[in-house]
Amino acid sequence: MSERFHVAAPPADGRAVLTGDEARHLARVLRGRVGDHVVLFDGVGTHWPAEITAIGRDRIDLRTAAAVTEPAPAAPPLTLAVALPKGERQQWLVEKLTELGVSRLVPLVTTRGVAQPTAAALQRLGRTVIEACKQCGRDRLLAIGEPATLTTAITDQPAGSLLLLADPRGDACPAAPPAQPVLVLVGPEGGFTAEEIAAAEAAGARRVALARHVLRVETAAIAAAARFA
Amino acid sequence: MSERFHVAAPPADGRAVLTGDEARHLARVLRGRVGDHVVLFDGVGTHWPAEITAIGRDRIDLRTAAAVTEPAPAAPPLTLAVALPKGERQQWLVEKLTELGVSRLVPLVTTRGVAQPTAAALQRLGRTVIEACKQCGRDRLLAIGEPATLTTAITDQPAGSLLLLADPRGDACPAAPPAQPVLVLVGPEGGFTAEEIAAAEAAGARRVALARHVLRVETAAIAAAARFA
Repeated sequence: MSERFHVAAPPADGRAVLTGDEARHLARVLRGRVGDHVVLFDGVGTHWPAEITAIGRDRIDLRTAAAVTEPAPAAPPLTLAVALPKGERQQWLVEKLTELGVSRLVPLVTTRGVAQPTAAALQRLGRTVIEACKQCGRDRLLAIGEPATLTTAITDQPAGSLLLLADPRGDACPAAPPAQPVLVLVGPEGGFTAEEIAAAEAAGARRVALARHVLRVETAAIAAAARFA
Repeated sequence: MSERFHVAAPPADGRAVLTGDEARHLARVLRGRVGDHVVLFDGVGTHWPAEITAIGRDRIDLRTAAAVTEPAPAAPPLTLAVALPKGERQQWLVEKLTELGVSRLVPLVTTRGVAQPTAAALQRLGRTVIEACKQCGRDRLLAIGEPATLTTAITDQPAGSLLLLADPRGDACPAAPPAQPVLVLVGPEGGFTAEEIAAAEAAGARRVALARHVLRVETAAIAAAARFA
């Protein structure tokens, strides 16, 4: 697989430009040269084979070949609404959900949550998504939604979705990806409160256990992704 | 859940002793006091509620209540044979496989593997297993086997096992945990060689894709664990 780079704007007239982090990565880390072949992707499902035509200080110009559109995923979209863990566990989570093909991650605002999803943190996570897409060959970025409460996360979901709440005391989890869109709610380390669980159940969510033991936040989210994405 | 500690030797006559890392963790990190209640587990399926009776320099004495035996897992055992990634990705992998209930991890010796499973590295991983068991409430340790080639990993598996080799170009993966023991082979970042794949297929392994995109080593192993453990 050729090295892949994310373009903010799609190529026009067979020409594209890399700037910012992506230009630095190609020029300084990978030591790209004029004539080298790479792949550009737009983050919404299309990529282009490309050849470097000029390397500037903070900008790389490329000539692109015909667009290739990534087939739409066969499975219905999986959204994970997660009370994000702190620090590197948060980065890990986002990297793994991207690799595994999750459509959307919603940072969940909960009573016992520890990590405040600040704008700076969300920007860092966006960068992690791009890095993971470059690495795993995914052309559509994992979307990171606005921080939401449990109730908002549920009401934002398309009608007819399967709504699951990860709970070590819940029922056995469906083994196969279902035919409709899925939302999985994953609480913070201290768990959802009884009120939060009651509200989610009143809104139609089912409590399901993803494993026999107590999972860390990121493990529960990754396990749900591996089963349903 | 009470704080949990691993005992190398099971309690005798209602008394147990913690030494080494476990004694230090309880005395110095958690500042345990005489009279505090904890849980001891032996790593092979049994735990005991216990009360601290004395705290020495490198030793803690405890009085134990009746043993509680963890029910045997409902699912047949899952073994993952993995060309281990380096550094913290290796620790992460072991933590997650422990949480998710994998029975055994075999470090796989492959042509393109990067991490040499040294004795010191395996000892560190053993410590990670104990930490994860303490945290997730698991009473049986994840077993870490001797480093093995792909062929040895297959022949060590019980007869009648389902043998799967993770391959992005493989068939769709079975969705549900099968009824027999499972071995999943996960290659290094550069992939198995054609010879390794041919040898595994000749020994009865099926190539299966765990996701639509190219997974990192630890992601593939965790995805297999989430589906089959």
